[in-house]
Amino acid sequence: MKRLLALPVGAFALIAAQAPETPPVAPAQPHEIVAASRLADWRPIAPENLLVMTLGSGAIVMIELAPDFAPEHVENIRRLARANWWDGTSINRVQDNYVVQWGDASEAKPLPADVVATPAAEYAFAAGGFAPAEFSEVQQGHYTATSGWLRGWPAGFDRDASGGLGEGSLVHCYGMVGVGRGDNPDPGTGAELYTVIGHAPRHLDRNIALVGRVVEGMPALSSLPRGTGDLGFYETPEERIAIASIRFASELPEAERPRFEVMRTDTEAFRRYIDARSNRSGWFVRPAGAVDVCNVNLPIRRVSD
Amino acid sequence: MKRLLALPVGAFALIAAQAPETPPVAPAQPHEIVAASRLADWRPIAPENLLVMTLGSGAIVMIELAPDFAPEHVENIRRLARANWWDGTSINRVQDNYVVQWGDASEAKPLPADVVATPAAEYAFAAGGFAPAEFSEVQQGHYTATSGWLRGWPAGFDRDASGGLGEGSLVHCYGMVGVGRGDNPDPGTGAELYTVIGHAPRHLDRNIALVGRVVEGMPALSSLPRGTGDLGFYETPEERIAIASIRFASELPEAERPRFEVMRTDTEAFRRYIDARSNRSGWFVRPAGAVDVCNVNLPIRRVSD
Repeated sequence: MKRLLALPVGAFALIAAQAPETPPVAPAQPHEIVAASRLADWRPIAPENLLVMTLGSGAIVMIELAPDFAPEHVENIRRLARANWWDGTSINRVQDNYVVQWGDASEAKPLPADVVATPAAEYAFAAGGFAPAEFSEVQQGHYTATSGWLRGWPAGFDRDASGGLGEGSLVHCYGMVGVGRGDNPDPGTGAELYTVIGHAPRHLDRNIALVGRVVEGMPALSSLPRGTGDLGFYETPEERIAIASIRFASELPEAERPRFEVMRTDTEAFRRYIDARSNRSGWFVRPAGAVDVCNVNLPIRRVSD
Repeated sequence: MKRLLALPVGAFALIAAQAPETPPVAPAQPHEIVAASRLADWRPIAPENLLVMTLGSGAIVMIELAPDFAPEHVENIRRLARANWWDGTSINRVQDNYVVQWGDASEAKPLPADVVATPAAEYAFAAGGFAPAEFSEVQQGHYTATSGWLRGWPAGFDRDASGGLGEGSLVHCYGMVGVGRGDNPDPGTGAELYTVIGHAPRHLDRNIALVGRVVEGMPALSSLPRGTGDLGFYETPEERIAIASIRFASELPEAERPRFEVMRTDTEAFRRYIDARSNRSGWFVRPAGAVDVCNVNLPIRRVSD
């Protein structure tokens, strides 16, 4: 029987050292780690990387883009948003336990002239562009040799010949946003986007370009009626969910820009948070002693001036 | 770079052997494995293990119970259904990327007299009750030493001292149904049930009794509006989703009983299916070479006479 009551490193261990005669303290809870974090443990989401999608219903979905990992697709998305291209398009596919997908249902709407028809197939990347200290490992041997969080994003890596980080890719966790594509070698332009609304479909990793994640508004997407056509596509135009607009926060007047902060994933606070997520206390009787990279639930918070 | 284009065993290998001069054939797709399966590869869901939950909207959710794994809780659920106890109760909690939970919102409705107030804490089980051949392994080292499918259910196991299967538990995959409980040592009666509507919350494994899974009707639960209260509870009575009734299929007239079949998980067909899910072909350019136990997507089909 495996009973891993491993203590989170850091905060609790320190408390114990200071007061050795007191009774054992329960391991810290994830929300306690967040509450104890410092301002420096967070980074803002740049407004030029934040998409504001407004549905016809008025519901708003905020998406952070990941230009470090899919620069050509993200550049196309910038061009599409600047041209107001998504205004009047729709959500066309809602497949249970899989994805919500949006774009031009007719597939006939001309793209802005500056959109690159065939960007690079940004499905994977070399670890070389990142410092090893930027990667906080969460688990080994699940789909890839190692997986964890890299510059605030879930990522999986092979090992290189010397045991270091080899080829990597972002990971299809709940809420991640990718670019729909046709058959190989078509990598998609970025006009057709999807987000994950179920158990992480890791078989898509390295097969399609991940470009971002929803940071607010998932319920507006995840609770949509499921499509009854093949692959969860809506069968009639009436079922489609209208998209009023998609804009970059940087295009909004400064006073109206939504502002978010993301916990930095190269910090001791984040590593404590992973430990706390791995070793839940309180209601739990048997801490797992481990956590899936997609169960870490990166802390993200909305901030105001 | 890891490029695992492993071939599924079985069907495809046989085809290749029969026609060695033909060009390579793409690995079988999961749906092809299902289409090629034999009737003997399936087992019916017994009507006395099938719950029919009818919502106030008329939507119907079918739940298969797992008496092999949580017999005392399942027996309580039988008593509750026989007493029509859930009629007029409601879905009270919908937490995004986590669970939908239902039962008596007032927490004051008396339980039927024969319901056991404190059943055993059926959070885990010994492997000894199962033959090793009943377990089809899917992956190693993710939360537990090994995980796979056992008698049609997702299960994770530790190793025993001799390297065999040790203590096990069912796994919180999408659609699995469990019994809400209070603080330890309260194991819950079965009157409060939940189902997973997001990425598998594996930290709940061995912490709570799993008693079944939704076999039809997940969209009726997963697309419900998310609750805005703590833990996704609805904040007002008006938001709650009425439950008209929960009955066992065995209580319905025989002609009206819904009938389902589940692919047997101790078969060569299922092992081929796992391989096909691990090595997707067609649209995919980089088969994963592996699959999460919760991404297997056990084939379940509705049958008629």
